[in-house]
Amino acid sequence: MNVLIVYAHQEPKSFCGSLLLFGVETLKEEGHEVKVSDLYAMKFNPVCDRGDFREVADPDYFKVQKEQSYSTAQKSFAQDIAQEQEKVEWADIVIFHQPLWWFSVPSITKGWFDRVLALGFAYGGGRWFDKGVFRGKKAMLTITAGAPETRYQEGHIFGGIDRVLYPLHVGVFNLVGFDILEPFITWAPVQMSAEERAAELRRYQSRLTGLGSETSLPFHSLDQYPDPMDGLNSYVAPRSGG
Amino acid sequence: MNVLIVYAHQEPKSFCGSLLLFGVETLKEEGHEVKVSDLYAMKFNPVCDRGDFREVADPDYFKVQKEQSYSTAQKSFAQDIAQEQEKVEWADIVIFHQPLWWFSVPSITKGWFDRVLALGFAYGGGRWFDKGVFRGKKAMLTITAGAPETRYQEGHIFGGIDRVLYPLHVGVFNLVGFDILEPFITWAPVQMSAEERAAELRRYQSRLTGLGSETSLPFHSLDQYPDPMDGLNSYVAPRSGG
Repeated sequence: MNVLIVYAHQEPKSFCGSLLLFGVETLKEEGHEVKVSDLYAMKFNPVCDRGDFREVADPDYFKVQKEQSYSTAQKSFAQDIAQEQEKVEWADIVIFHQPLWWFSVPSITKGWFDRVLALGFAYGGGRWFDKGVFRGKKAMLTITAGAPETRYQEGHIFGGIDRVLYPLHVGVFNLVGFDILEPFITWAPVQMSAEERAAELRRYQSRLTGLGSETSLPFHSLDQYPDPMDGLNSYVAPRSGG
Repeated sequence: MNVLIVYAHQEPKSFCGSLLLFGVETLKEEGHEVKVSDLYAMKFNPVCDRGDFREVADPDYFKVQKEQSYSTAQKSFAQDIAQEQEKVEWADIVIFHQPLWWFSVPSITKGWFDRVLALGFAYGGGRWFDKGVFRGKKAMLTITAGAPETRYQEGHIFGGIDRVLYPLHVGVFNLVGFDILEPFITWAPVQMSAEERAAELRRYQSRLTGLGSETSLPFHSLDQYPDPMDGLNSYVAPRSGG
């Protein structure tokens, strides 16, 4: 399989960085092809603006979706976006690997969603959820969380981790058609001993060894949730309010 | 009252931009002081890295929380961060105003959370939720959503809007101690007639006119959710996994 890892951590010596190295090695040993988008190392620009596009659909009024749609048709995305889009097309599995910041991904990863998963390229024209562009591909979160797991259990202060990850799972991955694999979460690595960290790396190795044969999580499909707008509107853009 | 609006839209002529102008005018007419952080216009940098800090706690290993904590003590945050932190301290209410992208805020706003709400400045040492640094202040989302409201109702494809906003409400605003006001959401302004848009602007005006006397939403408090780590750990950083 082709595996793309979209990775965001500033410090290669971090536990997050160790997980990356270990993960890449494991995946290659299993015979997979691996590409890594190391966002901080690439100095990936997360800000979505006119710079995303090499041609202009409307010079007087900047509407992101209109420009994204135009650049999809004209093949005129900025080079950094086009390169990431090619990697997504190449990949069978995309692993999004980063610390959990403010119950979400860091801004640099959020900017990857905003810019790379453009209207036209990643969704639009009724292509979403189980009719999505990336159906047949899988997405997975690899996360290091600062707090221990107890804090993220239902009934505790942060609420359930499923609630925390809902916008990422449903609003990003599911929406563009990815099947979703169970997230891999390391809880509070700062509180772990060296032995516990080594065991956690082995747990990740074991997880990735079986990646190809994993069953994806049950998520939304259009059949389950009939769209009240069906027939009225075949081209609703879910990502911006204009 | 002092009102800070953290605003993110690239196009002043957008409906989001009209809401901003209308909102600022209304708040000033009500006698409030208003400051706007117009993130795209400021070319706000959303990437959290070494550039956030004018002094270095550890040159060999970059750990965000350690550097944030050190810069809080040394008052050595980068100027752009220090300026935003001063505005938050000044404000009684912070309005986060932007389109909904991928069930969350755009990357430029996420980067404002990542960089401005630093450990030491905004949380840490047991200061969170109802013991949070910003208790007594209020936060509110003003959102333009691309899709109509029906899509965001429970039982429909996007799930309930409360689920979508949970990480922002609990994992950002509630966590640092803000009381949370009901979000103001404009659904699918692209599908509105000129009359409907004008009515929507009046609805926002009416909402902001009563802002000072609004009751905040019931959200998490530490009493409701006793922390299983209490007594074990008084300084857990929730935002990064190292």
